[in-house]
Order: sequence, then C-alpha cells, then structure tokens
Amino acid sequence: MTKTLKGIAASDGFATAPAYLLVEPDLSFKKTSITDVAAEVQRLQAALKQSDEELTTIRDLAKESLGEEEAQVFDAHKMILADPEFTGAVETQIKDQAVNAEQALKDVLDNFIAMFEAMTDNKYMQERAADVRDVTKRVLSHLLGVELPSPALIDHEVIVVAHDLTPSDTAQLNKKYVKAFVTDLGGRTAHSAIMARSLEIPAIVGTDTITTDVQAGQTLIVDGVHGDAVIEPTNTDIEHYQKLAQDYAQEAAEWAKLKDAASITADGKHFDIAANIGTPKDLDGVTANGAEAIGLYRTEFLYMDSAELPSEDDQFEAYKEVLEGMQGKPVVVRTMDIGGDKHLPYLPLPEEMNPFLGYRAIRISLDRQDIFRTQLRALLRASAFGKLRIMFPMIATVQEFRQAKAVLDEEKAQLQAQGVALGDDLQVGIMIEIPAAAVLADQLAKEVDFFSIGTNDLIQYTMAADRGNEHVSYLYQPYNPSILRLIKHVIDSAHQSGKWVGMCGEAAGDSTMVPLLLGMGLDEYSMSATSILRVRSLMKHLDTTELQDLVQQALNVSISNDDNLKLVADFVAKNQH
Amino acid sequence: MTKTLKGIAASDGFATAPAYLLVEPDLSFKKTSITDVAAEVQRLQAALKQSDEELTTIRDLAKESLGEEEAQVFDAHKMILADPEFTGAVETQIKDQAVNAEQALKDVLDNFIAMFEAMTDNKYMQERAADVRDVTKRVLSHLLGVELPSPALIDHEVIVVAHDLTPSDTAQLNKKYVKAFVTDLGGRTAHSAIMARSLEIPAIVGTDTITTDVQAGQTLIVDGVHGDAVIEPTNTDIEHYQKLAQDYAQEAAEWAKLKDAASITADGKHFDIAANIGTPKDLDGVTANGAEAIGLYRTEFLYMDSAELPSEDDQFEAYKEVLEGMQGKPVVVRTMDIGGDKHLPYLPLPEEMNPFLGYRAIRISLDRQDIFRTQLRALLRASAFGKLRIMFPMIATVQEFRQAKAVLDEEKAQLQAQGVALGDDLQVGIMIEIPAAAVLADQLAKEVDFFSIGTNDLIQYTMAADRGNEHVSYLYQPYNPSILRLIKHVIDSAHQSGKWVGMCGEAAGDSTMVPLLLGMGLDEYSMSATSILRVRSLMKHLDTTELQDLVQQALNVSISNDDNLKLVADFVAKNQH
Repeated sequence: MTKTLKGIAASDGFATAPAYLLVEPDLSFKKTSITDVAAEVQRLQAALKQSDEELTTIRDLAKESLGEEEAQVFDAHKMILADPEFTGAVETQIKDQAVNAEQALKDVLDNFIAMFEAMTDNKYMQERAADVRDVTKRVLSHLLGVELPSPALIDHEVIVVAHDLTPSDTAQLNKKYVKAFVTDLGGRTAHSAIMARSLEIPAIVGTDTITTDVQAGQTLIVDGVHGDAVIEPTNTDIEHYQKLAQDYAQEAAEWAKLKDAASITADGKHFDIAANIGTPKDLDGVTANGAEAIGLYRTEFLYMDSAELPSEDDQFEAYKEVLEGMQGKPVVVRTMDIGGDKHLPYLPLPEEMNPFLGYRAIRISLDRQDIFRTQLRALLRASAFGKLRIMFPMIATVQEFRQAKAVLDEEKAQLQAQGVALGDDLQVGIMIEIPAAAVLADQLAKEVDFFSIGTNDLIQYTMAADRGNEHVSYLYQPYNPSILRLIKHVIDSAHQSGKWVGMCGEAAGDSTMVPLLLGMGLDEYSMSATSILRVRSLMKHLDTTELQDLVQQALNVSISNDDNLKLVADFVAKNQH
Repeated sequence: MTKTLKGIAASDGFATAPAYLLVEPDLSFKKTSITDVAAEVQRLQAALKQSDEELTTIRDLAKESLGEEEAQVFDAHKMILADPEFTGAVETQIKDQAVNAEQALKDVLDNFIAMFEAMTDNKYMQERAADVRDVTKRVLSHLLGVELPSPALIDHEVIVVAHDLTPSDTAQLNKKYVKAFVTDLGGRTAHSAIMARSLEIPAIVGTDTITTDVQAGQTLIVDGVHGDAVIEPTNTDIEHYQKLAQDYAQEAAEWAKLKDAASITADGKHFDIAANIGTPKDLDGVTANGAEAIGLYRTEFLYMDSAELPSEDDQFEAYKEVLEGMQGKPVVVRTMDIGGDKHLPYLPLPEEMNPFLGYRAIRISLDRQDIFRTQLRALLRASAFGKLRIMFPMIATVQEFRQAKAVLDEEKAQLQAQGVALGDDLQVGIMIEIPAAAVLADQLAKEVDFFSIGTNDLIQYTMAADRGNEHVSYLYQPYNPSILRLIKHVIDSAHQSGKWVGMCGEAAGDSTMVPLLLGMGLDEYSMSATSILRVRSLMKHLDTTELQDLVQQALNVSISNDDNLKLVADFVAKNQH
C-alpha cells in the first residue's frame, strides 16, 4: 500500500528506484545438538570460504572507490578468517560440545570479547574486538543464508534506506548506483546530509520510521526538495513526482546558466558566493558550480586522513594545489580544527566531560605550537601561488588572536630571512563561532583582516545546546532573534572597521537565511558547491533595499525562530523580482 | 624548612595548626607464605574487630554531625564485615593457600570485584563493589598498622590538607576541629571552595603540590585572604601572620557592625544584598550576616539528598520553613536544576557527549512535567507563608518561559479552585545564564517579573569553555568585556521594562565585580552569606556617580579580563570614600 513519509529535505533532487535496506539483518539462531560433527565442520568451512571471498570483493571495491587506506580494515578482517587461533577454536567447540556451528561461533566470540574487554586501557585491542565481532557477523550471515548488506556491494540502481549513515557508510556509497538515500535519524547539518549535498544525490533525513515502513525491493520515490518519501507509489503519484522532477530540472537548468555569472541582486549589488571544501579533490565541484572563491578549506582532513602528523611539505603541496586550482580567486584556509568531536589516532587528547567546551582548534594550536608552526610555514610557502587568507578557528578573545598572529609573524619573518617567496596580499582573519567573539566583534575587527561566521558552533554555544543531542535539538534555532542579532553585530562591526565578513556555516546557503544576510550586508556566502547556483538565482530575485525592514522585524519584533521562518517565507513570496 | 605555597584564596580568614593529611596512605604489602595458619587467622580476626569498632565510632560521629541518612553507608560497611560469605572466604584463602592475611584479603576482593563488574548494568551491585573495596582498605590498614584518615575521626585542632575534597569529605568536616583546609586542586568556584565559605573556615585551593610539600603534623599557617600557605613557619612568619590576622579581625569587626545596616553606597543609593542557600539549615548564616533577602535557594539538594523524588509535602515543608524563617523578606526559589554535572540516582538521564550543553534544568522540567508540577504545587502552597519569587533556570528562549509559566498558571488555578490559600505577591522570573537569553533580554523582560544573572554558566557558554576543564580554565574570564557587555544589556533591558535584576553567581560577591555591577545599576547581589558584610562595607565606600565612567571604560576600551582587573583595582584604590 502506498504510504508517504515526511522528513527533512537534506539534499535537493528527485529519484525513483527500489529500496535497499542498509540495516542489520536478523542473525538470531537456536542452539542445537548435532550428531554429524564432520558435516557441521564442513558447513563452517564453507561459510568461512564464502566470507573470505566476499571480503576480497568488498576490499577491492573499497580500494577502487575510497583508496588503499580505507580498504585496509577489510584486510584485517581477512586476517582474522585466516587465523587458526580463531577458526580452530570454533572447530574445536563444534567437536567438543557437539553444537551447531552458529553456537560454536558465538561461544568463541564471547570468549574473545571478554578477553579483549578486560584490556580496557588498550585501545588497539579494543579495536581488534570490534573486528572479531564484525567477522563473526559475516560468517554467521553465511551460515544462516542471510544477506549482510554492504554499501560497497551495491551493483544496481537503488535508494539506500538506513537508520542512520555513518561517515564510513557514506564514503562507500557509489553514486553510479545509489540514486538517493533516506534515513530515520539526522538533520540538515548531520554529516550524512552534508555528504549527500557534496555527492549531489537527493536525500531525506529524520523520517523516524523509514526503516520499518519500507521493505527491501519496494519502489520508493524520493523528493529531496520537499522532504517526501513515497513508498509503493501509485501511477498518479509517479506522474505527479515526474512533473515535479521536470520542473526541478528546468529550474536547475535555469540555475546552470548562472554558472559564469556574478552574484548580483535585483538592485545590482554584488556579493561573493564561495564554496566550502575539505580536500583538493573537491576543486572540480567548485569550478563546475562557478564559485567566486573558497570561503572555507577545512584542513583537518589532512590530519584525519593521515597515520601521523602531516609533514610541512605534504601540507604545502595540498595548499598549493588548491591555490593554483583557484587561479587567483581567494582561498580561505582554516587552521587545524581538531578536538570536540574530531580526534586524531596519533594525537591523544585529554578525556573531557564536555569536549565541545574543551581543548580544541586554536586552543590546541596555541598549546602545541610545534604542530601549529608546521602548518603556518606550509601555508606561508603556499601563499606565493594564489590569494591566500589564513583563518583561525574558535577564537574567543582578542589575546588569543594576538598570540596566534604573533606566531604567524614569527614564522613569516623567518621564511623571509631564508629568502622564501611569499604572496604579497596575505590576509589573516578569524572564525566568529564563540558568543564572546561575536559580542566583542568591534574590538576584534580592529585587529583582523576579515571575519567568517560559523553558524553551527555559534548556535550551539549561544543556545547552550549540543547540536548532536536529540534531547535538546529543538534549541538548534538558526533564525532565533538572538542569533540574528549577534550576526548583525558582527557584520556591522566588520564594516565599521572597513573589513569584510563571510559566513561558512550551512546557514550561508539556506534559503531562509540568505534574504536576512543580504539585508544585513554580509559580503561572502560560503556553502556546499552544489548550493551555489540555487543561491545565486535566489539573490538575483531579491532587492536589498527592501530587505532592511525585514531585518529590523526579524531582530526586534520577532521573538522566535518560527516567527522568523514565517516572516521570511511571506516576504519572499511577495517580493520576488 | 619553611616553605610558602601560593594558591587561590578560596575562603577568607587566618589559621595556624598542625597539618592533617587527608590522603590515601600507602597500603602496599608483599605476599608471604605462612606456617602458623591459626595465628594468621587470629591476626585477621583482630583486624576485622578493630575495623568494626572504628566503623561504629565513625557511624556515630557521622550520625551526630550529618544525620541518619549519611551515616547509613557505614552501616553497610559493618554489614559486609559481619557477612560470613566475605570474611569466611578470606579465612578459607589463608588456610587453603597458606598466605598472609593481606594477600588472602586481596585475592577475595579481586574475585568479588570481577563478579560485580561483570554486572555492568546493575547500578546497585556496582555500588556494593565500591563498598567492598572500602571495607577491604580499612581491614588492610589495621593489618598493616597504618592509619586510614577519616575526616569524621578528627578530634583535635588541625588544618586539613588534601589533593581535592569531595562533597562527602567536606560534609564530614567538623568546624570545631578543622580550622582551615588547603588542596592541590580546585578554583574559587569549586564545590569545596563554596563549602568553605559556607562553613566560614579559611581555605586555599589550587596549590598544586601541598600534599607532597607538607608532612602530617607539621605546623601550617593558612592565609585565606591572600592565598598563602606557610609550612613550618619561623617565629618571624608567625608574628607577621598574627599581625595580618589581627588586622583582618579588626576589619571583620568593622564589617560586623554593618549586620543590621542597610546596603547603601557613599552617595546614598540603596541596593539589596542577599544570600544563596541550599537547605533550610543555611538560614542561621543568613540571619547572622544580615541578608536583606534570599537571592537563590537551590532546590536541587532536596532532590539529591533523597532516595526518591521528594513528595509535594516534603518540599512544601522545606519551602515554608525558609519563607517563614525570612519573616517577610523576599525568597527567590530556583526550580530543579538537575543534569549537567548533577545527577539523581533514581532519575536516570541519557548518556550525553556534552552534558553541559544537554538535557538539564528547565529542559527536564518541561519534559518531565510530573516532577515539575509537584514542585510548583509545593511552592505555590508555601507562597502563603512569605514573599516568594519562583525562578526558572536555563531559559534560552521566550517560548520556554511561556511554557513554564503556563504550567505554573495551570497549577495555580487548580489550587485556587480547591480553595488553597496562596500568597498575593508571587513573582515569577528567570535565570539569565545562557547567551541567547542575555542577548534577547529586552524581549524576555517584557514577560518576566525579574531576572537573576548566573555568572558561572553565562561565562562558560559565552566563552565556550567548561569551567571545570583545566585545559581551558584560562578562558574563565568574569571581567572579559564580552561578559560585562551582556550583563549590562540584561540590566538595562530589565530596567527599561520596569523590572528588577539580581545576580546569584559567585561574581556578585567579588570585590572586582561589585564596583562594575554598582555602576551598571544591578539591583540585588546574592552571595555566600559570609561575604555579605564585606560587600556591604565595600558598597559603603563607593560613589555610584563616579562608577559610570569606569563601566564605560570596562565595556568599550578594555579588550581583556586583565585590563579590567587592573582598571577596577586602580579605581578602587583612588576612589574609596
């Protein structure tokens, strides 16, 4: 029967395909006594062999789509299958206890896990425990004849349905076959949602019940513009959504024409639309969507994708590649933003009660100047190859900026003394993502070259609500007048000191936020590359002179996030040019 | 040799006495084979008997000073000593293995702990494991002839020296004998520091090394005004500090004269100085120090000191006692502020990554309205007995206040319909401790009767720095201009709507903050009762007309916390009247 689920539109677009359930299958079984031990051992060996073959396939596919490093986890799994300590123990258990292979497998697993878990202070062994668990699951699936879903194994067009998607799940999705995805959990700013926009596939998150409502193979329509997922659509539904998809394609075609256009409002004001990137690989999307700059290059991927601290030269190459790729357009590079929810295996951080309020980003850089100086030298050397802007994250006070700037100046002087060529229009700015920095923006503006507002953190600190905590997710309110007032103060403060100000949070590409930001005079809008043309089109239809009053209302008359959602929607409906 | 340690002055006053080290003693031993099993068993039994007697003494002392409930833990320990399963196992181990009693005890303990720890989901059994561990430690101390320190056993004048003091340690300190304490860890706002001020004993925290620098019994001088701890003082030291102590006593005597005076500045302006309390027991200190109101009654102790949710009647009695005790002076009662770092054993909260940014205070109350309504009914019924002000903690948005107020109004209407007598000048206000609420104070001021600014949380959210995290403690900056600007905005907003505004964080009694707050026109200053007379004296010597310019400088010229520390110190030095 047809059923429509409403979720959060996380990535634009339309798709229709059978559902592929990326959920844990039922691997339960009963303990049975067996009489033919030899046959049971043979059954086990067949399952081991099938598991090994499957892992080879997955490993090869993963290596191709994700690279050598990501594929290594599957090699670790294959090694466990080849380890006589593991497989031998299962065989012995079958023989000694005359139990079915499933039960023998479970007994051995429980033993291993108890042993590993006793070594609570050994992180390496803890990870091995997880590996053994994964391998056991795979062998069990073959014993039970149940398919264990694996995104890397998808070889036909599907819509992936999952409770949630982990970063590694998302990394394994092959855009060729995965036409869209729908999840129970998540919000617009969840990792999976950001990945969907970067992969340019439609996605709906936060449906609560999609994994229980849809069965594997059932036809699914995903409307990523409105957040609708239709299960087993009728012909009328199919026609309806085909029409919507056509309209959307037409609109997208209109947007595509804006690729080489400047970002100009109906009253002729020019703003910059920039892209957020994580690695030099993302440059293709930046160019394809006509970004006028890179507003945020998140350098932590350089650290996270590495087995040790990346060398100065490795960093230099990456920064140079991006700067050259942008051919003279500005590139804002944010220095290492580790800590909070981002950890490096080779850089142990203290256990913290509230990591989001802890040792992270510039706080680590100022403390671990060895790491910081290496990054700054790499950046300074790369500055010769384009228009570099260095940005410090999580600045809370004027002193922190002065300290960071002093370290940069020291490295700069040293490189100059060594005769290294440096760019001549380097700018140095900060993220505004801590309430204290927003409140004191007028003082900070006198010292920096630019600001970039990070809305995710600014909202979570200003509302005192962890954006990843479902119990307080109702407080993630980008349009709350308190947030908008801080943003306005930051923009006004920058302009009073003759500095420019951007925004590099997801909000910069948000259709409700953009009219407000234009009204406040924000200079640069940095977003997922795939949002650029939509926002450029939106700007074209807005007149900034009409937006002043809207901003006034949103800041001083509205008392809530919802007031402002409605206010902007009504305004845009009436004032499209 | 004489040595002076510098720490954080946590509680005023001077003391000289021998050091009492409240630190874990060395309980290590060697495994030995024994030949005379009977003698070893007898040695064990003697230690068990001594342990039991000691526990009886501690239990009785604890019951006297802390009450029946706190003493129960020692009964639990006595029960373990009386349990043949435990003591029998140790005896058997001595006999079977021919090992010394210490080793036998350890073997049995390890066994018990492994067993308890396997039951990871059983909180009750986990607590039993901790009990067994404590009992084993005590028996071991008697076997080894080592004294196990116990605050309840102190029977002569000492200065307690500890790495840190837990709430239960502090609760067991007998003011009659404990003349002061000094710790390695902690800051001015740590629990132990707050308790010291409430007990009115001098304290120094954050010395880093006191536990290794001082030996038990060595003479110690504590200067809680300047934060100096002098180990083995010379005669000259003793004279010097006697002089300081005399001056301090003289000053305190001057302050004492202000007990029944109003809080009035040099230019004749009247402000209210109020007290923070946790239980009705604290009323004595409130009266003794001449508080003009209770600015914060933290009701969570009612919940934390109870084995289950406190009943409406139990709460009513506590609230009534405080309201009656204050004889018509205003009492601000804050509704339950659980979550963050405060947990109730009978109210399991979700595991959270960042509990300070999570499900706490009003967020729980609005979700668990059963608990909230019980508290509100108890408060409303108590309102007939004094001047009650109900305050909601952790309000972030106008809607949250409206929701909480609506629940209160419903309960009020019901009680009125039932003919229950209620007070006729009830006020309803909120804590301002979330940046969003501070920024939107002008909108909130239209809806509430009053504000009370909570500086600890406001600072930690505004600076995005956990106040308990040593790696970012440098960001706990009460005088940072960003914090002062938010406070000023809150005060101005309240006054523009004709409402009053207080402060109930530690900052309200801080000598640097008070001049700034007077300059901004803060109406009510709520602090530890023991700070009241000092602050009343400080106010008497300040002229508010001269403070306007100071505030202007602090908000708009200074760029840092340190700038403002110096600014106020210079001002006060020059402008004492």
